Amino acid sequence: MAKELKDLTKRSENYSQWYNDLVVKADLAEQSPVRGCMVIKPYGYAIWEKIQRQLDDMFKETGHVNAYFPLLIPKSFLSKEAEHVEGFAKECAVVTHHRLKNSPDGKGLIVDPEAKLEEELIIRPTSETIIWNTYKNWINSYRDLPILCNQWANVMRWEMRTRLFLRTSEFLWQEGHTAHATREEAEEETIKMLNIYAHFAETYMAMPVIKGIKTANERFAGALETYCIEAMMQDGKALQSGTSHFLGQNFAKAFDVQFLNKNNQPEYVWATSWGVSTRLMGALIMTHSDDNGLILPPRLSPIQVVIIPVYKNDDQLLLINEKAVSIADKLKAKGISVKYDNTDNKRPGFKFADYELKGVPVRLVIGGRDLENNTIEVMRRDTLEKQTLSCENIETYVQNLLEEIQANIYKKAFDYRHTHTFTVETYDEFKEKIEEGGFILAHWDGTTETEEKIKEETKATIRCIPMESDKKPGKCMVTGESSACKVLFARAY
Amino acid sequence: MAKELKDLTKRSENYSQWYNDLVVKADLAEQSPVRGCMVIKPYGYAIWEKIQRQLDDMFKETGHVNAYFPLLIPKSFLSKEAEHVEGFAKECAVVTHHRLKNSPDGKGLIVDPEAKLEEELIIRPTSETIIWNTYKNWINSYRDLPILCNQWANVMRWEMRTRLFLRTSEFLWQEGHTAHATREEAEEETIKMLNIYAHFAETYMAMPVIKGIKTANERFAGALETYCIEAMMQDGKALQSGTSHFLGQNFAKAFDVQFLNKNNQPEYVWATSWGVSTRLMGALIMTHSDDNGLILPPRLSPIQVVIIPVYKNDDQLLLINEKAVSIADKLKAKGISVKYDNTDNKRPGFKFADYELKGVPVRLVIGGRDLENNTIEVMRRDTLEKQTLSCENIETYVQNLLEEIQANIYKKAFDYRHTHTFTVETYDEFKEKIEEGGFILAHWDGTTETEEKIKEETKATIRCIPMESDKKPGKCMVTGESSACKVLFARAY
Repeated sequence: MAKELKDLTKRSENYSQWYNDLVVKADLAEQSPVRGCMVIKPYGYAIWEKIQRQLDDMFKETGHVNAYFPLLIPKSFLSKEAEHVEGFAKECAVVTHHRLKNSPDGKGLIVDPEAKLEEELIIRPTSETIIWNTYKNWINSYRDLPILCNQWANVMRWEMRTRLFLRTSEFLWQEGHTAHATREEAEEETIKMLNIYAHFAETYMAMPVIKGIKTANERFAGALETYCIEAMMQDGKALQSGTSHFLGQNFAKAFDVQFLNKNNQPEYVWATSWGVSTRLMGALIMTHSDDNGLILPPRLSPIQVVIIPVYKNDDQLLLINEKAVSIADKLKAKGISVKYDNTDNKRPGFKFADYELKGVPVRLVIGGRDLENNTIEVMRRDTLEKQTLSCENIETYVQNLLEEIQANIYKKAFDYRHTHTFTVETYDEFKEKIEEGGFILAHWDGTTETEEKIKEETKATIRCIPMESDKKPGKCMVTGESSACKVLFARAY
Repeated sequence: MAKELKDLTKRSENYSQWYNDLVVKADLAEQSPVRGCMVIKPYGYAIWEKIQRQLDDMFKETGHVNAYFPLLIPKSFLSKEAEHVEGFAKECAVVTHHRLKNSPDGKGLIVDPEAKLEEELIIRPTSETIIWNTYKNWINSYRDLPILCNQWANVMRWEMRTRLFLRTSEFLWQEGHTAHATREEAEEETIKMLNIYAHFAETYMAMPVIKGIKTANERFAGALETYCIEAMMQDGKALQSGTSHFLGQNFAKAFDVQFLNKNNQPEYVWATSWGVSTRLMGALIMTHSDDNGLILPPRLSPIQVVIIPVYKNDDQLLLINEKAVSIADKLKAKGISVKYDNTDNKRPGFKFADYELKGVPVRLVIGGRDLENNTIEVMRRDTLEKQTLSCENIETYVQNLLEEIQANIYKKAFDYRHTHTFTVETYDEFKEKIEEGGFILAHWDGTTETEEKIKEETKATIRCIPMESDKKPGKCMVTGESSACKVLFARAY
């Protein structure tokens, strides 16, 4: 491992390669034999489970329930919402047959031409269509509203260039789909879920985010408004980390979903949808980690504390075991997840490097001298600082330290973003600054033409129109036309 | 609802229709527009989540971890294990293309012939092949073993005749896939997981099961031995509720997965796989429920206690609210999930019928007279018995009552199975008895021919060779050939 660890490319050398190395070496995920589809390995999946559990609790606290809708969608459903089809129907996995048979030459299997489906089925790229087709039967009156459903599921979009977690053909996500009696209520829900995502990102992932509105060009296909949270990675690029869509009555109209209001008049239902995916894993990795490996926020770390014994002989190990187990028990009593690693087929140095690579927030080491002095060595992963402390009340110290690490890595990410966010007035300034990476706030005339021109010339996109900004009007840096407020530009993942 | 409730077919009239009615009317699941694929509705999914959470905890307590493997499997993988391909490759969803395009006539979408895949992909019917192809890269030495992975996922088998939960083309399940250095360890794992399933079924689902071994004919395609748990439904039919497979070295050989043992010699890895699915939902429903609707075991019930107010006017409701909330709080403090339903758009009678239909184990009703007397009406769903009790310490009474209901419905199911399990010596007796439904223990000569003959003539299959039986030898009821022990026959779902 010490050797392998050295193989982790440095961020300064090649950030992109560093990321790829880290995902694989930290046992988070790997490529599968199926193009663009990944295997999420147990350690990576354990982090995803922590993300899931926390978000799921937050969804339920706000009155949402889970359900499950079919994986396959009839091809014709995709055409029903005019804009949606343009955004999603194109690159997708198409099921055309339902049987294989033995090859006549006896070598392997072939598709049975007799088992052709009457209508092709699409593996869901997102589920608005199948869900709104279902809601049609669930909704008759205002009494049936709101419907506040969420689904944890796999989805598939046939991607040409893929990267583990960031862009894969199959990925895991949650998709909330809600139905409301009024426009106001649906808009409120859209914002509520955006706020939950932002709160989760900042409080659990320790990742500061900018909440904003997408431009028409970047909007979800079929939405009237798309809200998003945008985070800055350590290379200054933006990563869209969650979206919440106000769908208006588009899907209700496409699938003819009406309800009788209190005056017994039919009205179309108002809709939202919102989602985050395993992409969050990529965001988590790139926000905090360093050249030694992962740095995980304590609140999402499958192992929060690892205890490693350093011993000369079996007799000493027995004494250390006793001490370590007693400390582990005290930590567990405080709700901290602890691993005591006294396996004897790896040397301490190997273990140190391995748990650093895996991003375990706190490492405790007990050696022979510690036994004599009733001390323990404490290392925090975020700063790599070590100190030797008394074992007395160590559990309280560690508990506080975990909170401190959580706060510290948030602050570090926040400060990084702050020092890499610029305001520019001219397009020349913009073109210069964008090369350095980071977020740029600048005036834009509100047209797709200008947006596309900037993208073409600088590879920067409008990440969002920030919701929390001074909203001062000005002139577009490109065309000089009037602009209502500065918008957020960046190169993005 | 009172009216709709009456529409629930009686079990005695048509058991099968009763089941179908109940699944839909209790809001558990419904058919989707995609043939054989179901929508699992929020209430049904909430029960599935309770099942998942409990099983997942049990898997983790026994050292297993979760991971995620791709949905799609290259067609060629299926041919690698000779028996497996016969069992699984045939009726499955085949992805042949990765793009749709606008139809030339402007009406809808067509499959883009240019986007044909080089090799077709299959939606996983089960994941042994893709997982063993992955394990090949994870395993080098005995130090890498065991691997104890589980996956929660959707799978698809193209079924011709489907029934909600019992047999659907897409279903949700967990599939454990473990890799071991020795035959003994893999066999031990197979039994361990069978025991976990049996324990879960009996302790949480309140469903007694028979643990046993499948005959060669009923074995999982690619396994050396398949273990199962079999439960009896209220119509006397058997329902296979979980399976655990000892796969020997079949998949290791098919995918060339070897490890270096302690003597540095290469050996093939030993494997197990084991799974339960949303089929358990069907088992749960059919084991306990009655003509009034669901009966849920308290341990898996999303709502354990419902409180309903019966009031004359708003002033009275205010007083009842206060009382109800205080009781709900006391119940919640004991970890009991409570719903206080004081919605004013449904009458109490409607609510009573609805929560009966949904199988909520305990119903509490507070009326005006209860306020005066500090009493409350308690109804238990399993027996429908009502009594009026003092509110003093009602939370302890309810807590005990939930345990009593859990035990009572288990006992009821156990007694039902006991009185519907028969031992026969002759084939004539067998043919007569099997018409009545139930389990039949009889001698069988161990051949597939006899097994098939019995199936053809009586529609009964050998559910398993029970592990806990007296194992007395005898003569086959059909051929008179020698038999090592009686085996368990039944008609089955």
